[in-house]
Amino acid sequence: MGELHERRRDRLAARLAAADVDAMLVTRPVNVRYLTGLDSSNAALLVPAGGPAVLATDGRYAGTAALVCPELELVVERRTAETLTSRAAGAGARRLGFEAHDLTVARHADLAALDGDVALAPLPPLVEELRFVKGEDEIVLLAEACAITDRAFDAVLPRLRPGLTERQVAVALERQMVDFGAEGIAFESIVASGPNGAVPHHRPGDRALQPGDLVTMDFGARYAGYHADMTRTVAIGEPAGWQRDVYDLVRAAQQAAVDAAVPDTDVSRVDAAARDLIAAAGHGADFTHGLGHGVGLEIHEAPLMGYGRTGKLMDRVPITAEPGVYLAGRGGVRIEDTLVVRANGPELLTKTTKDLLVL
Amino acid sequence: MGELHERRRDRLAARLAAADVDAMLVTRPVNVRYLTGLDSSNAALLVPAGGPAVLATDGRYAGTAALVCPELELVVERRTAETLTSRAAGAGARRLGFEAHDLTVARHADLAALDGDVALAPLPPLVEELRFVKGEDEIVLLAEACAITDRAFDAVLPRLRPGLTERQVAVALERQMVDFGAEGIAFESIVASGPNGAVPHHRPGDRALQPGDLVTMDFGARYAGYHADMTRTVAIGEPAGWQRDVYDLVRAAQQAAVDAAVPDTDVSRVDAAARDLIAAAGHGADFTHGLGHGVGLEIHEAPLMGYGRTGKLMDRVPITAEPGVYLAGRGGVRIEDTLVVRANGPELLTKTTKDLLVL
Repeated sequence: MGELHERRRDRLAARLAAADVDAMLVTRPVNVRYLTGLDSSNAALLVPAGGPAVLATDGRYAGTAALVCPELELVVERRTAETLTSRAAGAGARRLGFEAHDLTVARHADLAALDGDVALAPLPPLVEELRFVKGEDEIVLLAEACAITDRAFDAVLPRLRPGLTERQVAVALERQMVDFGAEGIAFESIVASGPNGAVPHHRPGDRALQPGDLVTMDFGARYAGYHADMTRTVAIGEPAGWQRDVYDLVRAAQQAAVDAAVPDTDVSRVDAAARDLIAAAGHGADFTHGLGHGVGLEIHEAPLMGYGRTGKLMDRVPITAEPGVYLAGRGGVRIEDTLVVRANGPELLTKTTKDLLVL
Repeated sequence: MGELHERRRDRLAARLAAADVDAMLVTRPVNVRYLTGLDSSNAALLVPAGGPAVLATDGRYAGTAALVCPELELVVERRTAETLTSRAAGAGARRLGFEAHDLTVARHADLAALDGDVALAPLPPLVEELRFVKGEDEIVLLAEACAITDRAFDAVLPRLRPGLTERQVAVALERQMVDFGAEGIAFESIVASGPNGAVPHHRPGDRALQPGDLVTMDFGARYAGYHADMTRTVAIGEPAGWQRDVYDLVRAAQQAAVDAAVPDTDVSRVDAAARDLIAAAGHGADFTHGLGHGVGLEIHEAPLMGYGRTGKLMDRVPITAEPGVYLAGRGGVRIEDTLVVRANGPELLTKTTKDLLVL
């Protein structure tokens, strides 16, 4: 693992000259994890353009850091960013880059007030740029997270029946994922039944499933830090005509988005592939969120798709495709896969059927 | 609930004149929740010094916002802070305060680049200051979170035996809390057995409990947004002399901290009450973290205790007291309660025995 993280740090260091800094202070926890392997709520990493990186974390994580990244010099200190900023200044750095999308205005002011001749330079999200295209080692972990998610759905499906509450369904899915090897859930599960299905981010509550419901389940496993994300909508009892129509529409839109997710395509076109179909059916206003997002060490990461976002997809970028149609007071449908953009076509990592399941 | 949140907003508004701003932009999600009841990952609140507040969130949360805080004007828009900043400028605000401890340097630059004549003014954590002293309505919810945590420990204790892995123990505790009514876990549970007990933030792994182990369990339930936090260390089989000595020391230190937690005491004295005892026994260097922290809508909030932190405790401030002694390669002991500082003495919310349990 040490070599893998060292290669990542080298790739970052190689970009620093072009960013016009002598060194970079990495403060976002997920980025520190990507570059070191250490998962800590209080750590920072100093990456010089040349020379070895230095890790700072507090006493709670010192032992873990020594195990996970023994190749790194470790400073045990609670004020991690301050310590490393002083360290950079002491080592003669003139311009120290920082993560402008992570450092708060208050913490920046604290760093700027430190003694030393180093200038703080805001940087774009350089580590996130490195994280955008995944290594095959990462895709294997993400695929395992997705496989656990599929298996949990399979296992819980036969237990779904009228009378179960949304919350009971969510708990069943989550426990099944952990029993199948997940280290935890990737995000708070959504189980939205009947009219609640019209709320995209509905919290599972005490409503019991009823005949005539569509039930949307949006959930995923976390495995070795990687986040799966899948949504399926099922029918409790024979669906009404409008329910089947909306389902078929969303399914077609989701497939269109998956098919459009190829390298060099702009993400706006992937979003449009689904959105245009839904709009043509008169439901444009009922698809109230973006098409999807990248997944990896975060449940939501680049690329974000929708809301006028642009940017090219690339080989080995994992994304979700999750269009939905939400009808206030009646219900909704969302269908979502996690997939990897590949030169030879999209690779679905979540493999559960998208046929409408009638329970 | 609307009235409760309105009173909180009124208290904030009353502080804005002294902070020399016409209005405040609240962007921290937990602060938006405290002031509105809305739990959203993308929301912002504009609180003018005079006049009604305005809430912004995106389409995913619009329906929930309409249910939770119907008394508030709602703007449905993804770029929440930008929308409300423009709104404040349009309404004639000259100085708009922002949460300098939340807004990133990058987002601040985006807001500063907007059209309009409003100056952005960094504010100290005003909402956190309001949140410091809890209402009795909040303490009731926190007490329920703690009661669930106690009950889960009671239920799992008879099942602890050699051969169970740390991970199995953590999962058992977490499921029991949910079965007893928790909406989820308050934080990632720690179960550290034998030598792993020397790592304060050990992640529960595949190590099986063994006779001769001390096992530290640090876990808690979340209930209605409030976070319980409790740690107990138990012995698997008759403990060795050093294990009992360390246990007795930590227990005495923890009790000393609890006893010291009274209104108007400086938090540094509460930390010292435990730390001095541990240091006097020659283990000062083995207590590698702060004494504890406030709890509420966040698992870690003000007051933080340790690391030279200062500040007065007050009536109705819930805190944790969690000293520990960690001996590399051998193991450790930590004992923690959640309690409320009260004028008539500390009120323990976690009530599980602190006698050394030998299983």
